[in-house]
Amino acid sequence: VSRILEEGSVSGVGVDQELISAVPSWNPTFLERNFTEAEIAYCQAQPSPPSSFAARWVGKEATFKALGVSSKGAAAPMKDIEILPDESGVPTVNLHGDAKSAAEAKGVSKILVSLSHSETIAIAFAQAVSS
Amino acid sequence: VSRILEEGSVSGVGVDQELISAVPSWNPTFLERNFTEAEIAYCQAQPSPPSSFAARWVGKEATFKALGVSSKGAAAPMKDIEILPDESGVPTVNLHGDAKSAAEAKGVSKILVSLSHSETIAIAFAQAVSS
Amino acid sequence: VSRILEEGSVSGVGVDQELISAVPSWNPTFLERNFTEAEIAYCQAQPSPPSSFAARWVGKEATFKALGVSSKGAAAPMKDIEILPDESGVPTVNLHGDAKSAAEAKGVSKILVSLSHSETIAIAFAQAVSS
Repeated sequence: VSRILEEGSVSGVGVDQELISAVPSWNPTFLERNFTEAEIAYCQAQPSPPSSFAARWVGKEATFKALGVSSKGAAAPMKDIEILPDESGVPTVNLHGDAKSAAEAKGVSKILVSLSHSETIAIAFAQAVSS
Repeated sequence: VSRILEEGSVSGVGVDQELISAVPSWNPTFLERNFTEAEIAYCQAQPSPPSSFAARWVGKEATFKALGVSSKGAAAPMKDIEILPDESGVPTVNLHGDAKSAAEAKGVSKILVSLSHSETIAIAFAQAVSS
Repeated sequence: VSRILEEGSVSGVGVDQELISAVPSWNPTFLERNFTEAEIAYCQAQPSPPSSFAARWVGKEATFKALGVSSKGAAAPMKDIEILPDESGVPTVNLHGDAKSAAEAKGVSKILVSLSHSETIAIAFAQAVSS
């Protein structure tokens, strides 16, 4: 009898970019709406908080795309996609609420994400992996 | 007896970027040569047609790279790589002609793609998946 | 008896970008420290050596991210990540030294990479694949 494993198969990808200056990280309402307390604490402790917030913001958008659900724009609960570094510093995605439900409905077990920012632009790539 | 499935394994990746202003979407000859009728209709109905054409253009280049075949530049039949939204709005790649043959020869069953544009730059990422 | 194959499963992704002008490719010490002889010969034979060096540089950084090990910045042996075109022109990653050990420790059998540069910006994407 054989048992088939398909761990790590890819079901969706997402890329997103934004001018760092276009992400209103100086606005407490924007931050509280879209970032968890742990994300806010992490970004504010970085050398350039605006860059860290912008990188996470595009990471959340890229995750939405990788899940294959359209971002709801201003109405989307971006807080449901939480991106925090693991013990090696690798950004790691935790899904909550609607984002978690959407992932489960699609058989997505994990989101891999990578973030990058230059002085002006933040870019992120996300990948949905099924098991 | 065991049967091994390897659905969703990745065989190639591609990234591409372009200044939106560098993609001559105002040129009907360029458009007819490189985009299908359905792509042209879709892009012209978007809020910013030049951005949509540029995003698709880099998506086609990224797909070429993910297939592991060099783009033939101006001579390449970019129309053979068609990118249209599915019912959820997720960009979906349909291969025709030479691009389809190249994919089949390499055992590529699917291309995943994601597109992004800021006001000035279009970026795309593509991934070739084998089954 | 069943034998389970998981070829091509994805274990990490990495994206990186840099202004081409910010990569000191005019500096022989920088080049010798971070590029192999074969990479230097290849880049110097390209139409725009600074663009080729910058694209490879971000490719190396993206590979670091995909491996899930933090780049050690100026102290990192970037020469250990060698990116050269295969016979089809597809950029191919060869790992040496510490980078090779890190990959083996994580079960990473292959790094897929794609490079892109505009006139000003180099972008790379890398993906770690396990077998």
